[in-house]
Amino acid sequence: MKRVLVDMDEVIADPMTAMINWYRKEYGLDVDYTKMKGSWANGFPEQHQHLIRARLNEPGFFRHLPVMKNSQRVLAEINKKYELFIVSAATEFPNSLKDKIDWLGDHFSFISWKQVVLCGDKRLCVGDYLIDDHTKNLVHFAGKPYLFDAAHNKDVKEYERLHNWEEVANALL
Amino acid sequence: MKRVLVDMDEVIADPMTAMINWYRKEYGLDVDYTKMKGSWANGFPEQHQHLIRARLNEPGFFRHLPVMKNSQRVLAEINKKYELFIVSAATEFPNSLKDKIDWLGDHFSFISWKQVVLCGDKRLCVGDYLIDDHTKNLVHFAGKPYLFDAAHNKDVKEYERLHNWEEVANALL
Repeated sequence: MKRVLVDMDEVIADPMTAMINWYRKEYGLDVDYTKMKGSWANGFPEQHQHLIRARLNEPGFFRHLPVMKNSQRVLAEINKKYELFIVSAATEFPNSLKDKIDWLGDHFSFISWKQVVLCGDKRLCVGDYLIDDHTKNLVHFAGKPYLFDAAHNKDVKEYERLHNWEEVANALL
Repeated sequence: MKRVLVDMDEVIADPMTAMINWYRKEYGLDVDYTKMKGSWANGFPEQHQHLIRARLNEPGFFRHLPVMKNSQRVLAEINKKYELFIVSAATEFPNSLKDKIDWLGDHFSFISWKQVVLCGDKRLCVGDYLIDDHTKNLVHFAGKPYLFDAAHNKDVKEYERLHNWEEVANALL
């Protein structure tokens, strides 16, 4: 059985949308999508970068994120045909760790605790396929890397891009 | 630079001693070391197994564990000569996750969040050396496995055994 590794943020969970909604409500300001290259956090005004960072490590932020459209249905199928692991670079934000497990329990209850990896560096993790929105994670991967489309990676040309979970289904199912 | 993966519980942290001390204080009973084969939790009386399990997922339990003797000094040296990662099977106990990060910050401050992996299944993790007290983790490891001596693995013969951190230093430094 081949092994599929799937990232969380910007792939099955949507922290960017949650952050933009919170920021608009709290500060009444918009983000600049043209400045997001490399990280969506760059799209927030310079003077509020520290607020965005603090919010990322606030207990509860990762607990209530929107789910990426169709990811539940497609991952449930992938889980039957592959050895599936969710791999999230999360240890930078210790308060996110339990929130992420609980969020997975809510929205992806077919994924057990045995299938979850919370780490700081994905180079350690091996598999046949990796679906991730960051080239820094894809570049070291020995299997087949897929770039999941995100606001911060629009200019990346080096990887096969999957725009949504319908395209993931077409690639893997 | 070669990569060393090091387990937490029973290798650098001592949850068994913490649990025995707590249990003796709360219930005034002793554990049976002869019944620990496979897991030290088996050494606690049958009727209290559920208490041990509940205690493992109590916030704070993994926050205040004793540090294994000499592990700090030897790991600090290993961290200079190898690419070091701490790999802990922890996602079964979501309340342990932040505690483990905070505990590492207290006792192994030279280890950054990038060097920590909290997972459910170590088969995903690749490296050159793995120091672990559980054969279930060593058996799938493609590099050189070392069994770290523990009360529950005394009968294991299949792996090179390191009895303490002095022996780790002799093996790797």
